[in-house]
Amino acid sequence: MSSICITAFKWVPPFAQGLVRDLRVRWALEEAGLPYTEKLLGAGEQNSPAHRAVQPFGQVPVYEEDGLTLFESGSILIHIGEKCSTLLPKDPAKRARAYTWMFAALNSVEPHVQNLTTIDLFFANEEWAKLRRPGAETMALGRLNAVAASLEGRDYLEGEFTAGDLLMISVLRNLRHTSIVKDIPVLAAYVARGEARPAFQRALAAQLAHFAKNEPKAA
Amino acid sequence: MSSICITAFKWVPPFAQGLVRDLRVRWALEEAGLPYTEKLLGAGEQNSPAHRAVQPFGQVPVYEEDGLTLFESGSILIHIGEKCSTLLPKDPAKRARAYTWMFAALNSVEPHVQNLTTIDLFFANEEWAKLRRPGAETMALGRLNAVAASLEGRDYLEGEFTAGDLLMISVLRNLRHTSIVKDIPVLAAYVARGEARPAFQRALAAQLAHFAKNEPKAA
Repeated sequence: MSSICITAFKWVPPFAQGLVRDLRVRWALEEAGLPYTEKLLGAGEQNSPAHRAVQPFGQVPVYEEDGLTLFESGSILIHIGEKCSTLLPKDPAKRARAYTWMFAALNSVEPHVQNLTTIDLFFANEEWAKLRRPGAETMALGRLNAVAASLEGRDYLEGEFTAGDLLMISVLRNLRHTSIVKDIPVLAAYVARGEARPAFQRALAAQLAHFAKNEPKAA
Repeated sequence: MSSICITAFKWVPPFAQGLVRDLRVRWALEEAGLPYTEKLLGAGEQNSPAHRAVQPFGQVPVYEEDGLTLFESGSILIHIGEKCSTLLPKDPAKRARAYTWMFAALNSVEPHVQNLTTIDLFFANEEWAKLRRPGAETMALGRLNAVAASLEGRDYLEGEFTAGDLLMISVLRNLRHTSIVKDIPVLAAYVARGEARPAFQRALAAQLAHFAKNEPKAA
């Protein structure tokens, strides 16, 4: 039995709770039925030399398994998916299409979603952010509508759930502070479908449990 | 012998020549020694219903091979890499690390590079862009310095060239209109090392040949 350990945060502010990227890896591990342990980073530890040595960008998660160290949730999902045909189908053509949607989520959709969340959550009061937000929303909407068109008439992007859906739904969840996804019924139903999966529920509960336990005391 | 066809543009303006994403796939095909044909899109065709049916975001490249249709250069590189151990090593741990750098290039580095290129190439005269550029450059530099630290003392990210380097070097090339990469000697040497590969040279020549031939006549 291999020993899997993921790195996550002890606590993050409420706006990030339920969104931190270790959730993507926890979800995949739950879909695969693989047990794991956790290494929790406290305040400031994410930029320590020890953490940067395994995660050059100072982020989470890091994935460790029997001497193999990986970062980037996309690549960790491929590694887990090789042990779980729900995440990555064994048929080579279906697997290639799952990879396609994984990269679509992370390279064609997430950058535009991230531009909006960066504006809304970190720079809302800055002049540039106010001027840029309408254009950034238009760009993001273009990508979201393309995803919605690809979902028309099916539950998941290729019919059956894959790691591509796990990532796409995770990216769309980052817009929960807006009504953008809610206003596109196909996408709202898609996100709800993903969130209803027992594996997602277990993963979310596992991430949130640490934040509840490590809530800083009021000053 | 399988029949591979990629979709590219007939012509793009000079600022994009040598950067359009079919170059990444051409480069991988050249590393793998796989012949391919091309389908060239003219002005406006990228948003046609026919193209959107195979590339939901209206972009290039699309990759077609014996009934399999893929988009997203990252996933196309995995597909090609399965036939080429230079791109994706056969050893599972080495292959997992190559995947990690592929996703790092496309999800941790490219979004920040793209924010800068979007400002410089499309919005340079807008007030929001002037106000935002210093912050966007700081964000991008943070990621670039992390990549430089990972390269210290080695030619490529894992020692030997992989698809992770192909994508990281391609992302860094998008900053050619600035001195940002030139000012970080480790990265400048890394990009030069990638561009010196014969496979890259053949790929670049193939993309540029179409643009030269299809240059619009002056009005």
